[in-house]
Amino acid sequence: MDAVLRQSKAMCPFLKSASPSTLRALSTSARPKASSPCGSTMSNLQLLAHRCPVMGNAMAVQTAKYGGSAAAFRSFSGQSKAGRAKIHTSRNQEARAVDSPVLQGRDKAPIPPPSMFAQARKASPLASADACTSASTFDYNAFYDHELDKKHKDKSYRYFNNINRLAKEFPRAHMSNKDERVTVWCANDYLGMGRNPRVLETMHHTLEEYGAGAGGTRNISGHNKHAVELEGTLAKLHAKEAALVFSSCYVANDATLATLGSKMPDCVILSDSLNHASMIQGIRHSGTKKIVFKHNDVADLEAKLASLPLHVPKIIAFESVYSMCGSIGPIEAICDLADKYGAITFLDEVHAVGMYGPHGAGVAEHLDWEAHHEGMPRGTIMDRVDIITGTLGKAYGCVGGYIAGSAKLVDMIRSLAPGFIFTTSLPPATMAGAKASIEYQMAYDGDRKLQQLHTRAVKEELNSRDIPVIPNPSHIVPLLVGNAELAKSASDMLLQDYGIYVQSINYPTVPVGQERLRITPTPGHVKLYRDELAEALDEIWTRLGIKRTSDWAAEGGFIGVGESKVQEESPLWNDKQLGVEQATKEIMATGGIQSVTEALLERDELRGAVGRVAAA
Amino acid sequence: MDAVLRQSKAMCPFLKSASPSTLRALSTSARPKASSPCGSTMSNLQLLAHRCPVMGNAMAVQTAKYGGSAAAFRSFSGQSKAGRAKIHTSRNQEARAVDSPVLQGRDKAPIPPPSMFAQARKASPLASADACTSASTFDYNAFYDHELDKKHKDKSYRYFNNINRLAKEFPRAHMSNKDERVTVWCANDYLGMGRNPRVLETMHHTLEEYGAGAGGTRNISGHNKHAVELEGTLAKLHAKEAALVFSSCYVANDATLATLGSKMPDCVILSDSLNHASMIQGIRHSGTKKIVFKHNDVADLEAKLASLPLHVPKIIAFESVYSMCGSIGPIEAICDLADKYGAITFLDEVHAVGMYGPHGAGVAEHLDWEAHHEGMPRGTIMDRVDIITGTLGKAYGCVGGYIAGSAKLVDMIRSLAPGFIFTTSLPPATMAGAKASIEYQMAYDGDRKLQQLHTRAVKEELNSRDIPVIPNPSHIVPLLVGNAELAKSASDMLLQDYGIYVQSINYPTVPVGQERLRITPTPGHVKLYRDELAEALDEIWTRLGIKRTSDWAAEGGFIGVGESKVQEESPLWNDKQLGVEQATKEIMATGGIQSVTEALLERDELRGAVGRVAAA
Repeated sequence: MDAVLRQSKAMCPFLKSASPSTLRALSTSARPKASSPCGSTMSNLQLLAHRCPVMGNAMAVQTAKYGGSAAAFRSFSGQSKAGRAKIHTSRNQEARAVDSPVLQGRDKAPIPPPSMFAQARKASPLASADACTSASTFDYNAFYDHELDKKHKDKSYRYFNNINRLAKEFPRAHMSNKDERVTVWCANDYLGMGRNPRVLETMHHTLEEYGAGAGGTRNISGHNKHAVELEGTLAKLHAKEAALVFSSCYVANDATLATLGSKMPDCVILSDSLNHASMIQGIRHSGTKKIVFKHNDVADLEAKLASLPLHVPKIIAFESVYSMCGSIGPIEAICDLADKYGAITFLDEVHAVGMYGPHGAGVAEHLDWEAHHEGMPRGTIMDRVDIITGTLGKAYGCVGGYIAGSAKLVDMIRSLAPGFIFTTSLPPATMAGAKASIEYQMAYDGDRKLQQLHTRAVKEELNSRDIPVIPNPSHIVPLLVGNAELAKSASDMLLQDYGIYVQSINYPTVPVGQERLRITPTPGHVKLYRDELAEALDEIWTRLGIKRTSDWAAEGGFIGVGESKVQEESPLWNDKQLGVEQATKEIMATGGIQSVTEALLERDELRGAVGRVAAA
Repeated sequence: MDAVLRQSKAMCPFLKSASPSTLRALSTSARPKASSPCGSTMSNLQLLAHRCPVMGNAMAVQTAKYGGSAAAFRSFSGQSKAGRAKIHTSRNQEARAVDSPVLQGRDKAPIPPPSMFAQARKASPLASADACTSASTFDYNAFYDHELDKKHKDKSYRYFNNINRLAKEFPRAHMSNKDERVTVWCANDYLGMGRNPRVLETMHHTLEEYGAGAGGTRNISGHNKHAVELEGTLAKLHAKEAALVFSSCYVANDATLATLGSKMPDCVILSDSLNHASMIQGIRHSGTKKIVFKHNDVADLEAKLASLPLHVPKIIAFESVYSMCGSIGPIEAICDLADKYGAITFLDEVHAVGMYGPHGAGVAEHLDWEAHHEGMPRGTIMDRVDIITGTLGKAYGCVGGYIAGSAKLVDMIRSLAPGFIFTTSLPPATMAGAKASIEYQMAYDGDRKLQQLHTRAVKEELNSRDIPVIPNPSHIVPLLVGNAELAKSASDMLLQDYGIYVQSINYPTVPVGQERLRITPTPGHVKLYRDELAEALDEIWTRLGIKRTSDWAAEGGFIGVGESKVQEESPLWNDKQLGVEQATKEIMATGGIQSVTEALLERDELRGAVGRVAAA
C-alpha cells in the first residue's frame, strides 16, 4: 500500500504537496454513520480523485474494468472498507446506535448490493462506457422502494388513521365518514384545552383583528405583541427571566441543543437513554460529544460525569415525564449532580406542562408544591434547572414549543439558532390562544386533578381485569402487548369493532418486544367511556390471546409488569393533593363502596363542572 | 512522540490492543467544525483517557500541575492542535464555511483563551485540587456574554420591532402602542392572504368545529381530513402524485435533505451558493458530501456534476426566487443537467408559490404558462422537477411548509424523517385556512398581477430618483445600502420619522458590504403608500448620505447596481401576461402620460377590487 502511495505521489502534484495528516483525514468519509445503509461508503479522497481530470478518467476505466465503485483507489486510504467502517464507530456513534431505537433500525436491515440501485443510463457524456452496468445512473425509485420495503418488513410502516376530533363532542371524533363517531383515547390534548371556550374566543378575536399568519420571521415583521406577551407568560410560568417560542418543541429541542453543543468549546452532552427523538437529533446536529446514561439512573450519570474533566462544559439532557412509559426523571438528584460537576441541566417538560404543579408549570414545579403555591420560587428545584423546554401543543391544546431560562441564555439562542431565526413566526391567533390556555391553567387546577383521577380509575379498572398496565407514577397508561402485529390488531379491532381509537406504539418508537397500547385519559373521559374502554380491552385481550399481567408474572415479569419485587412508585399527584385522603375518610365512613376513586369521581366531576364555570 | 506512544502502549491494555487505524481515528475530534470557536478541541482519545480510572487520575494531576487542558496527553494524537484543525478542513467543511454566510461568522471572531470561561469551583469531588484555577468549572454565563458580545461587535445583533399587522387595515400595523400606525413594507404576506375573507371564514368555522390544536403527531391522533385535503390540494397545485405538510418549510427542507442525503449511499448534494439556511442545515445534517456551485451558474454546476462518478446519487438543491436579491434560478437548464448526469432536482419555491404561474404554483409553472393554463402539465418544467418545496406562511398568508413529489418519495420521507414523524401536526384551522388560500389563488390571478404592477411602479419610481434598486426579474425590491450601521439607521429613521417599516438586512443574512433594505410590495400598497415610501427613501438617502445609483456607477457598479454592461433581465411576469401590452397601446393613444405603469394601475386597482369580489 505504501508503494502505491509513493508511486501516486510521484505522479500527482496534489498528493505530492499534501501532508500525511491531510491524506489521513481525507481517507475517511464525511458521513457520520458507522456504515452506509445500502452499499459502500466513498471517502473524501475518492471524491476528490473522481473530480481530478487525470485520475477521474483512470478511475472510470478501472470502474468499467472491475465493476466496483473504484475499488482500486481504496488502497490510498490504507484500509479496507470494513476497517473504515470500524474507525467511524466512535463512542458517540455507538451511543447513538445503541440507545436511540428511533434512529437504529436502518442498520439492522440487510445491505443490498450496490448494483441494486443502478439503472441503465439514458443520457451520459461517457457514452463509450455504455456496456458496463456499473457506469449507469442511480435508480432513485428502486431506492425509495427498498426503504419502504424495509419498513413493511419490520412492521414499522405507519398507517395513519383519519381522526377528526370534535370540539363540541370532546373526546369524540369522526372518521373520514363524518357520521362515524369514535372515542379518542390516545390524543395529547390531555386537558381538552383545544376546545376550551376561553382559548377559542381569544383565537377568534385575534384572527379577526390580526389575520391568519404572522407574515414573516421574528426579525422581519413577524415579531409582535402576541409573541412578547406569550414569552412573558411562559417566563412567569417557569419563574425564569426569559422564554423563546419556536414552531414546535421538536424545533426548540433540536435548535437549542445543536446551538449550545456546537458553540461551547469541547462540550459534552449527557443524554438519558430514553430521550425523545428531538433531543437525540439536536445532540447529533451539534456535532459534539454525547454520552448516554441509563434511563433515570443517577449512579450511572454520576459515574459518567465524574469521568469527565471538571473544566469542560456539560449539558445533562433529560425529561420529566417520558411519554411512552410514563416514568418520571429524578430532577432534584440531577440538579445536585449538575452543581457538583459543573454541568447545566436541560429538562424537557413537554408531557408535563399544564399537568403538574400548582400552576401547571410541570413536574419541577410539582416537587415544591408549597413554595410555588405561595409564589416563592427561589431556591426550588424548578429554579435550579437551567433550561426548561415545553410545548403549546399537548396539555395547552394549541401548537408550538418553547424554551425558558436565564435572559442571557435565551438571548444567545435567539441570536444564533438558525431553526429560530430563519422561520416564519407562529400566527398571532395561535400565540394568543396558547397564552390564554396557559393563564387558564395557571389559575385553575381542576382539569389536571380530574385528569389524574380518571387516570387512577382507568389504571385500577384495568389492573383489576388482569390487563397489563406498565406501572408508573404519571398520567400515562401504557398497556404491554409485546408484539407488533398483535398491537396493531388490537388497535384496529378497538377502532372497528368498538369505536375506540388507541394507536398502537411499535418499533422504532419502543424497542421490539415492548410494543404497547398507550392510553391517555382526559377530564372528558367520564365513566361511560371508561367502562366501554375496559370492557373492550378485556374482550380483545381474550379474542387475540394477548398475555395478561398474571401471564407475565408467571414468566417472572417484564418491564415492571407482573414483577412482584418491584416497589411500585406512588403517583406524583398524591392523595392529599388530589383531596383523596379527606374524601376517602368521608366515603369509607358511609360504608361498603368498592372503588374509592370512582366514588370520588362522581363527586369531583360535579365539582369540576362547577369549578370550570367559575374559572371561565 | 512515537516514544510516548510506545511507552503508553506498554502500560495500557486498551492502547496495546487498539489498531493504529483506530488510534488515528480517535485522535481526531467528533466535532465536525474546522476549529472550535472558543478554546481548544478535545479528541475522542482524550475523552476516553479522561474516563479511564488510571489515566484519568494521572491527567487530573497533570492538569493541576501545568494548568492546561490536559496538554500532556495531546502527544498521543501525534499532532499539534493546529494540525488537527487542518485535518478537519475537508472539502465539505470548506464549502460550508465559505458559501454559507449564515453559518460563517462564528469562525471569524477572535478566539478567547480557554481560561476565559473558567470559574471558581463551588462544589467538587476533587477538593484537593482547589488551589488550581484550571480545575474550575465552565463559566456558562461568561460564555453567553461572549457570544452576545460578538454579535454586538459585528453589528449582527438583532433588535426586533413590535409590529402588529392589522387585518382590516392591510398593509398597516400598530406598534407596541396600539394607536401608533405604520405601513409595513417588508412582510412576506405578499398577497395579503392573511386577511382574505374566505381564508378567515374557513379558519373561524374550522376552529369552532375542530378546536385549536391537532392533539398529536400525524401517527397518533393528529392525522385528519384537513391534512388529507391540504396535501391533496398541494399535490394538485404542483401536478405531483403526492405532498407532505410540515411545521414549516424550514423543517421541510431540513428534514427532506437530511433524510435523502443520509440514506442514499454515497449521495452528493450540489447546492447553490445562495441557498437558504434551511437547505444548508439539511445538507449539513445529512452528513453527506456537499459541493457548492456558483449562484445560478449552470456551467459551474455542469463542471461539478461531470466530475462525479455517474453511478452515485446526486441531489441538485436550489431555489426559484432567491429572497434577498430577487434573482431567479435557471430551472430548465438545471433539469437538463439532472437528466444528463443522473441527478434529482430539489427546488425551493418558498418565495414563488402563490406568486407566479397561472395557478400560483410558482416559477416552474410560470415558465410553461400555456400548458398549465390548459391543464396539461405532463412534460413541462414543473413536471420534470423531482421535489418541490414551498411554504404556507408567505403568499398563502398562514403558516407551515411542504414538499411535493412522486408518491414513493413522499411516502419514504413520511416514513423516515424524524422532523416529520415526531412533531405535533399543524392545527386543523391552519390547514383548512391554507387550503382555502391556495384554492383561491388557483382560481384567481388578480392579486399576483396587481402585486407585480405595484412592484414595477415602486422600482420605476425609485430608479427615477437614483435610489439603488438591485436589479432582478422578480417581485423583490432590494435597495443597496452597503453598510450595516447605515442600513439600520435608515430602517430606524423610516420607522420613527415616516411611519414606514422596512427591516434592514445585514450580515450574516447578506455578505458584509451588501447590506440592504428589502422592500416587498403587495396588492395593498396603493399609490398613496408608494408615494410616501419613495419620498421618505429619497429624503433618508440624502439625510444619511447613502450612495445613489449614480455613485455606484461612478465606481464601476456593484452587484448589478450602476453596472452599465449588465443586460437587465426582463421581469418574469411579462407585459403580455400582465396585460400591459394592450393597455399601453390604449393609454399611449390618449397621449402624454408620464408613467404607463401608474396609469395602468389606476385602471387595474379598480379591476382588481371587482375581481376579488367576484372570486370571493
